[in-house]
Amino acid sequence: MDLEGAGHQAIDKICDYLQTLEEGKLVPDVKPGFLREALPDNTPEDGEKFDDIAEDFERLILPGILNWQHPMFFAWFPTAGTYESMLGDLYSSSVSNPGFNWSCSPACTELEAVVMDWSAKLFHLDDVFFNSSRIGGGVMQTTASDSALVAVIAARAKYQRRHPEVPLEKLLIYFTTATHALGVKTGLILGLKCRALQVTAKNNYALQGEEVSAALEEDRAAGFHPFVLIATIGTTYTGAVDRIDEIGPITRNNGLWLHIDAAWAGVALACPEYHEACYLNGINTYADSFCTNFHKWGLVNFDASTLWVRDRSLLTEALDCSPAYLRSKQSDEGTVVDYRNWQLPLGRRFRSVKVWFVLRSYGIEGFRSYLRKGITLAKQFQILVRSDPRFEIVTPPFLALTVFRIRPPSDIQTDRSDADINNTMLNALNRIFHRRLSAKDLFLTSIDLDGIFCIRLAIGSQRTEERHIKKVWDILDSEVEPAVNEWLGSNWGSNTLAD
Amino acid sequence: MDLEGAGHQAIDKICDYLQTLEEGKLVPDVKPGFLREALPDNTPEDGEKFDDIAEDFERLILPGILNWQHPMFFAWFPTAGTYESMLGDLYSSSVSNPGFNWSCSPACTELEAVVMDWSAKLFHLDDVFFNSSRIGGGVMQTTASDSALVAVIAARAKYQRRHPEVPLEKLLIYFTTATHALGVKTGLILGLKCRALQVTAKNNYALQGEEVSAALEEDRAAGFHPFVLIATIGTTYTGAVDRIDEIGPITRNNGLWLHIDAAWAGVALACPEYHEACYLNGINTYADSFCTNFHKWGLVNFDASTLWVRDRSLLTEALDCSPAYLRSKQSDEGTVVDYRNWQLPLGRRFRSVKVWFVLRSYGIEGFRSYLRKGITLAKQFQILVRSDPRFEIVTPPFLALTVFRIRPPSDIQTDRSDADINNTMLNALNRIFHRRLSAKDLFLTSIDLDGIFCIRLAIGSQRTEERHIKKVWDILDSEVEPAVNEWLGSNWGSNTLAD
Repeated sequence: MDLEGAGHQAIDKICDYLQTLEEGKLVPDVKPGFLREALPDNTPEDGEKFDDIAEDFERLILPGILNWQHPMFFAWFPTAGTYESMLGDLYSSSVSNPGFNWSCSPACTELEAVVMDWSAKLFHLDDVFFNSSRIGGGVMQTTASDSALVAVIAARAKYQRRHPEVPLEKLLIYFTTATHALGVKTGLILGLKCRALQVTAKNNYALQGEEVSAALEEDRAAGFHPFVLIATIGTTYTGAVDRIDEIGPITRNNGLWLHIDAAWAGVALACPEYHEACYLNGINTYADSFCTNFHKWGLVNFDASTLWVRDRSLLTEALDCSPAYLRSKQSDEGTVVDYRNWQLPLGRRFRSVKVWFVLRSYGIEGFRSYLRKGITLAKQFQILVRSDPRFEIVTPPFLALTVFRIRPPSDIQTDRSDADINNTMLNALNRIFHRRLSAKDLFLTSIDLDGIFCIRLAIGSQRTEERHIKKVWDILDSEVEPAVNEWLGSNWGSNTLAD
Repeated sequence: MDLEGAGHQAIDKICDYLQTLEEGKLVPDVKPGFLREALPDNTPEDGEKFDDIAEDFERLILPGILNWQHPMFFAWFPTAGTYESMLGDLYSSSVSNPGFNWSCSPACTELEAVVMDWSAKLFHLDDVFFNSSRIGGGVMQTTASDSALVAVIAARAKYQRRHPEVPLEKLLIYFTTATHALGVKTGLILGLKCRALQVTAKNNYALQGEEVSAALEEDRAAGFHPFVLIATIGTTYTGAVDRIDEIGPITRNNGLWLHIDAAWAGVALACPEYHEACYLNGINTYADSFCTNFHKWGLVNFDASTLWVRDRSLLTEALDCSPAYLRSKQSDEGTVVDYRNWQLPLGRRFRSVKVWFVLRSYGIEGFRSYLRKGITLAKQFQILVRSDPRFEIVTPPFLALTVFRIRPPSDIQTDRSDADINNTMLNALNRIFHRRLSAKDLFLTSIDLDGIFCIRLAIGSQRTEERHIKKVWDILDSEVEPAVNEWLGSNWGSNTLAD
């Protein structure tokens, strides 16, 4: 097969896969080691036909894929995948280059700078974050983990320049017990101490100002130097939103860098009606850095994490180490940005093409409509959950995320006194329920929230429509009774599962 | 346009671009800001037609691309780009997912584990580095910078577990003055002290064992704790190869982690005839971690940096921080690998597809043929250079890299005494020569080697053939005389350029 033909075949196969996604398996039915068994244990001696290779993708790889774009996928947070984004990435692959400075492919740097400004405007960020401001600016990172890491490194370098006498062992990174694993991992990577400030059900797992003040007092008294706080808008567990309005003035007055991780929820800033709930004013006033991921709920294929900083010089002062072979006339003159000094690795993919393709294909209104559709579907789901006494919403829903669990029907509850059906038993019931759901045509993940086992429903697939939410509800509805019966048969879970 | 049509159009446009690459401009003729001027300053309110977007890629982006796949591109090191790799990436985009653990798309983890073993065998690495060993293993990182960073973090964690009393301020990272910027950057990122061991012309810029021993003695006497050494096989400047045979026993006996960065040259291990020159025995005996980039000289589109470690538990002990929502039955049971704990970010692209596609399309023999072709072309070039007294090879050529400069013809040299034509003057001549070449249909980068201005010719584009090397030589040949005349007119450079 000629190469052109192989390309056309790929497009046809992919279109076919995407168009029939809903009819196929959502969750792969494979066991660890399935692919190693199916593949030879070495590269072939001679080249193979491309036809055979493409066929093996279909035959061996697709059955091992969890279909994140399936309309019944509600696990973790969505990972966006759109056809327009995929084609954008294809065009960028065709001009493969390592993107480490302006001169090594001027269009890479320039398009990213422009698209980051488009995105900053889409999210209503303050002008200071625009690349055109030449003060702050925006850059695409791999993931929210990388974005947070870059921010913490810049914060550390800034703090150390002001306090050169403080040993690394006394520096402290703040985040919360609801922060994504990126908080703990940043500490591991940098070898720095961390403190996860406790967030609780009382405040819906959102960090309050007073907790920051109290921690600062305590840690400083113990000789530590907190220098950065990672706050979250839309936590992974429950979609909680830290109180940026309270935290911002405290971090600013105490010389802490405020990094705001809005990996999932940040794209909702495209819709003016969520500005208040997402603390847009707080971000614009207090954030030293702000991150959201187009590749989560923003219609762009993984990876595309967008990071903005209030002061770009703090990135380059921390990360610039240009040897002669990476310098260029243009960067020496300061007329161009060399994004390698805004990130950890040297090389970088040409990620802005796919974001550009998506923003232009959807337009501001199309982007908003997609987000609003997901939120509306979530609200419809919440109405169903609230209307049924066997269901309980555990934390306040935010945007397109709902955290819920089931309770036994009231006639069973009255069988034993209410007080007797304790949380351990409810957890056992919900574990059974979740396990039963896993065998059905939908995919949901669970969390343990301070000892409460909950189920999360995160809407985000472009293909999810009202009929899918109805289908979800039908499945949930029909599985409560069998789950309760299984639970009763296990003596309220005590025969099967420890908490 | 329907989406399927947009895909076919993309394939046609890309095939056309690649087939006519040689006829087009190699180096873009654009000025900083060209794209910002050409683009609107905001996302359009409503979605645009895909036709228009695709057309803009051709009209606005392509003219701003430096064509790394052009047969006359010899700058830096090559960045591979093959059609097969691009299609592999396209297939992987179509099943967009974040790849953070086994269960979130089993095929991603499994294919990577298998392809890393295929690659380990292709490069003749010891069994201990195979994933199937369950002791060491291989993982794909973004770039060689990330690979080195991960290795240094694992090394630091290991050292700190053994020496918990040593403060971070006393830890020391070793590399050399010829190490890629990733060395210095790793220090910046981690906030750790570094020492770049001096390599010199005497040893062809390769690190020797005695230099390591001397540094260790000196630094330990000063209270420092060197814990990792980054050695290079094929440095960016000159392709120098550090003496792994000498360094290995020293790092091992002194408890230093040995990371070997063979970002560019490592793929040559596919050819048995380069095992000795690349110290394959040394790698297999002493390397704690080893990295090479398929995306440099390995036919795979950026990014695909392959990292192997001798002991995988040292990665996970340094980087694993799995919260409940990222754990899975399979990883808890230890039957699968969760690659997120082998790298910095949480999410990861499905990179193994493109490597798989390339290895199968080329086969072991095809992969070797491609490398050998580049090396043969480099040798042909070196013969031409050596045969002409106006040219001088500055450092011993390695694989497909040649570092050279020109000298004035002997009749000019006799015009002044030889002693008078000092290095400053020669640098001025070579700067003029390099600047003149920049206006021609080829692309070469220069380096400053301990004060000697040299020109590098790195061969790697799949499209480069013998006729292109002949063309390079014709251009070089014809530019010597004008360069010398310009140089003479500037009074041996003293009127124009300071050294």
